[in-house]
Amino acid sequence: MKSPIEFYFDFSSPYAYVAHEWIDALAARHGRTVRRHAILLGVTFAAAELKSPVAYPLKREYSLRDFARSARYERVPYVQPEPFPIATHHAARVFWWLHDTQGEPAAAQWARSAFRAYFTRGVALNELAALKALVQESGLDPQAAEAAWNDPTWKERLRQVNEQAIRNGVFGAPFFIVDGEPFWGNDRKAQIERCLAEGPF
Amino acid sequence: MKSPIEFYFDFSSPYAYVAHEWIDALAARHGRTVRRHAILLGVTFAAAELKSPVAYPLKREYSLRDFARSARYERVPYVQPEPFPIATHHAARVFWWLHDTQGEPAAAQWARSAFRAYFTRGVALNELAALKALVQESGLDPQAAEAAWNDPTWKERLRQVNEQAIRNGVFGAPFFIVDGEPFWGNDRKAQIERCLAEGPF
Repeated sequence: MKSPIEFYFDFSSPYAYVAHEWIDALAARHGRTVRRHAILLGVTFAAAELKSPVAYPLKREYSLRDFARSARYERVPYVQPEPFPIATHHAARVFWWLHDTQGEPAAAQWARSAFRAYFTRGVALNELAALKALVQESGLDPQAAEAAWNDPTWKERLRQVNEQAIRNGVFGAPFFIVDGEPFWGNDRKAQIERCLAEGPF
Repeated sequence: MKSPIEFYFDFSSPYAYVAHEWIDALAARHGRTVRRHAILLGVTFAAAELKSPVAYPLKREYSLRDFARSARYERVPYVQPEPFPIATHHAARVFWWLHDTQGEPAAAQWARSAFRAYFTRGVALNELAALKALVQESGLDPQAAEAAWNDPTWKERLRQVNEQAIRNGVFGAPFFIVDGEPFWGNDRKAQIERCLAEGPF
């Protein structure tokens, strides 16, 4: 049994969104599954003393252009959301709540739904009314989801996931670990594919 | 006549070294030439409020691994030099001196020679004795090169190139401009190739 591809993401990362659209097909082509980890980039950025690429003067304009172009390169729909970036801890807690109570497929389905809502329709995942409506639209129970994102259990779960991610060397998103080999960025797709086909190189 | 690919680099950038090894062949496949710009990343980093990836705690270890792996991915020899990163203003002034007095091919040949010396044999381009020996080994006049890197003319030339690069939005290396379209990073090779084949996408 081959080990799954570890896939770390934040719901506010454009490159993680794009990668999320190709990672399952890539994994399947090589007989792998994907193990998703919703994390908070703010926490890993703080640990690594990093900031969002749009927080820097010259890099900001380029990055906004590159987000959309990198999506087009992968034939993935993309509309730059505003506000951007946003806090995603509520959406991430919903992910872990689903993951632990309904299983990985339900969590993966939520990840897909939340990513697409934010990056194609500008649904503000940080606004609780909008998030609740999205939960309902995604076929989930909005009252239960709201209870979950306010529940200390899922706050603590997310906190521990972030700590574990930092211990595993994760400092950005998307971040992949393939058979112990770390890859950072949507732009590492071709390297990941070679690694899956031929082993670490 | 198609416009050349603008290629910005710093002699201390591993990703620029790797890209320098593939850029000419890529350009030629699409009927293009390459216009090289030796710049100082320290200057663009300051303008963009950025730092080297190895200046950050968690990112450092990953980056050192990724430099070598990205070179292997492109089948380019790579040995992590020490010290790293280094100041490259002397090597860059030699580039512009050759560029303006002997022409672009002589400057390109020097770029190739200096990149390979640093990234495969650890020749410290920031140590003037080592740099002078490399100049001689590269078939150039070491006295004339030394005079050039101390000459206010080439100091000023490099200063102006850096300023122009920042005005053009350059904040890192390698940085490419293809028909007005900016691309940052060795990992944008596939996007650059599509841009050359099909136009901006």
